[in-house]
Amino acid sequence: MTASNNRYTAKESNAFVEVFNIEPKNTGPLNGLRFGVKDIIDIGGYKTSCGNPHWLDTHPVAVANAVCVDQLLYAGGICVGKTVTDELAFSLEGDNFFYGTPLNPKAPERVPGGSSSGSASAVACGLVDFAIGTDTGGSVRVPASNCGILGMRPSHGLISVAGVNPFAPTFDTVGILARSSDVLARAASVLLACDIPQGIKIGTVHLIKEAFAISDKDVRETLAVPTESLVKRFGKKVKETSLREIYGDNEGKDLEACYETYCIIQWAEIWSCLGSWVEKIKPEFGPKTKRNFELVKNLDRSKLGEAMHQRESFFRRMRAFLRPNDMLCIPTAPSIAPLKGALGNDRTEGSYYPRALSLTSIAGIGRLPQVTLPLADIQGVPIGISLLASRGQDAFLLGVTQMIASEPK
Amino acid sequence: MTASNNRYTAKESNAFVEVFNIEPKNTGPLNGLRFGVKDIIDIGGYKTSCGNPHWLDTHPVAVANAVCVDQLLYAGGICVGKTVTDELAFSLEGDNFFYGTPLNPKAPERVPGGSSSGSASAVACGLVDFAIGTDTGGSVRVPASNCGILGMRPSHGLISVAGVNPFAPTFDTVGILARSSDVLARAASVLLACDIPQGIKIGTVHLIKEAFAISDKDVRETLAVPTESLVKRFGKKVKETSLREIYGDNEGKDLEACYETYCIIQWAEIWSCLGSWVEKIKPEFGPKTKRNFELVKNLDRSKLGEAMHQRESFFRRMRAFLRPNDMLCIPTAPSIAPLKGALGNDRTEGSYYPRALSLTSIAGIGRLPQVTLPLADIQGVPIGISLLASRGQDAFLLGVTQMIASEPK
Repeated sequence: MTASNNRYTAKESNAFVEVFNIEPKNTGPLNGLRFGVKDIIDIGGYKTSCGNPHWLDTHPVAVANAVCVDQLLYAGGICVGKTVTDELAFSLEGDNFFYGTPLNPKAPERVPGGSSSGSASAVACGLVDFAIGTDTGGSVRVPASNCGILGMRPSHGLISVAGVNPFAPTFDTVGILARSSDVLARAASVLLACDIPQGIKIGTVHLIKEAFAISDKDVRETLAVPTESLVKRFGKKVKETSLREIYGDNEGKDLEACYETYCIIQWAEIWSCLGSWVEKIKPEFGPKTKRNFELVKNLDRSKLGEAMHQRESFFRRMRAFLRPNDMLCIPTAPSIAPLKGALGNDRTEGSYYPRALSLTSIAGIGRLPQVTLPLADIQGVPIGISLLASRGQDAFLLGVTQMIASEPK
Repeated sequence: MTASNNRYTAKESNAFVEVFNIEPKNTGPLNGLRFGVKDIIDIGGYKTSCGNPHWLDTHPVAVANAVCVDQLLYAGGICVGKTVTDELAFSLEGDNFFYGTPLNPKAPERVPGGSSSGSASAVACGLVDFAIGTDTGGSVRVPASNCGILGMRPSHGLISVAGVNPFAPTFDTVGILARSSDVLARAASVLLACDIPQGIKIGTVHLIKEAFAISDKDVRETLAVPTESLVKRFGKKVKETSLREIYGDNEGKDLEACYETYCIIQWAEIWSCLGSWVEKIKPEFGPKTKRNFELVKNLDRSKLGEAMHQRESFFRRMRAFLRPNDMLCIPTAPSIAPLKGALGNDRTEGSYYPRALSLTSIAGIGRLPQVTLPLADIQGVPIGISLLASRGQDAFLLGVTQMIASEPK
């Protein structure tokens, strides 16, 4: 397999676990489009590794496609391979201990981002037209930002996760990565079973102060360009808003509270979903995955009740705040893609993970759709800017994306 | 284990796979309340059978509680046992080939309803204060109706399903069964992390014509009593509404379309979730379960795309129609509990399953919360009447339930 529009082969990209050619089951809006599937989503006739060889060994061949894969095949798409995922989807980096690090073609010395690392790499390398991944806490959005492509996390619950390995079901979604907003909209509208609205009218675009504030200085400076474009285009509809106006935390710790709430629920769910397999099989993990599973296993679950209350409170406040045509705008990630090997297990305040998850948890807690757009870079290294719409306004958000996205080549 | 307030032992009820006593992990709103857990929801230290001995044999001991079980234990609840489920949750009857038929104490010659059969039976027999089950296509609501207790299906996605075996994730929910609306509200508000609103104001209560029309004549006649009570209480706010006014199908086949759409998506998802295990293990199933898995395996998945579009169309129309304080009112089931052994595999129009699923699919397709209330019976055999609220209005619906529910002893 070689790309039609650039110089990488599938092998060079290291984006794929396996390449093949599954023909469309019908004609439709995806005619001629080639797509990759994160290897945590079942394809009938193949084993799903979930990024770990012991998972592969201890699970049967999938007999059916995941529902989302069938939707794409019946709409005319051509499935060309299974793409590398971080182990059990548990990372934002994209450096799988067993399957390697898919190429970030815009910054080969940097990680592609994860956990939908191979899907992002395959798209960025031009080896597929689009790819599907999963996004629980940023696993589509962060690699899309790192690799300079578009990525969508849909409203939670709108795209079927049947045949997708559960990780943290309260937050698990199937997301889409693409180079062009048109292809993104076509693939997403098949999966969401929606039509993109015409004649879109924008409400308010809220630039979330805290989200820009926790990002690197060079990210803030670089993203000033696309935010100024938004202002030029939409005028006074674009305004700075503090999360405090939405969530109303008295101490102004809204983003930290959002992050902490997210982590407690996510960790509890991961252990409830995967703990039995981990304890029975005692699989070999890469060192960072091993550490991650120790963290979730040892979570103090007495915090769960309060976290659930906090989550519902945040969710309801966001729901009351955002009108149907309003949007939030935030940096997708707090920094450009980290250099390979640069991130350890640092989870202290101000390090990469807490800041990245603070940004991604806004959509997770709010059950909101989010699209990251590749509208900026720092000396050629991409950084995404994100728009979030109110829950269920996925088609609107895709329409806005088509309206404003420049189309990176 | 014997019930404090009636004459059944756990053994006589056949409601439990296993009885034990897991102490609360903290004090809270559920202090002193004893609950049962459908054996498709993980309890740490125990194996989850999902109602099939081959599932039990091929899966490891659960190391963690499902998140919903931990929520209840940290809120003061006492977990007293695992309750019988239909095989893989795939039935509305409650007659498990391997684990037997839990007692329907109001009608011992009739089925309790499924698939949360043991949870309903344990509550109806007075052996627990409440129980949790799962409801994909009616598996909490139908057994609650059959056994003369309250049952709630929450808005899809609001109660964590981490540690609950996936069946058809687009529709899977964790639901609650109880004898009293107060206990129901207490348990549900823990799981939903919500507070029940005070001073509730009702909008319109829509009695759905087609739902009453497809139900048995004696069900319609009997349910006239609680619907007249609604009219007495709420006056002109209660009105007859046709689904056609909501969905706008030109041929007036709205309820049939709702049912067919539901089945296609549910069957595709079941096979995507469970097909690999079924084909690898080739488990022994009871005859009806065997037939059910043949049906889902042989589904023509080319119908999936159109079903997804139909579902989203229905969903959006319902969302646009229902205001926050409006409700729908329907019979929970088309008939009283069938006699044991009376239902075969008949799926022809007018038979039990298509009519039952037509009623339950309204909430499934609309992602709506639903509570069934035990306000009527036919010569002592219970039949439930249901209220459905708009999506996310679960706390409102629980408040309404407390307002109007008589409290059966």
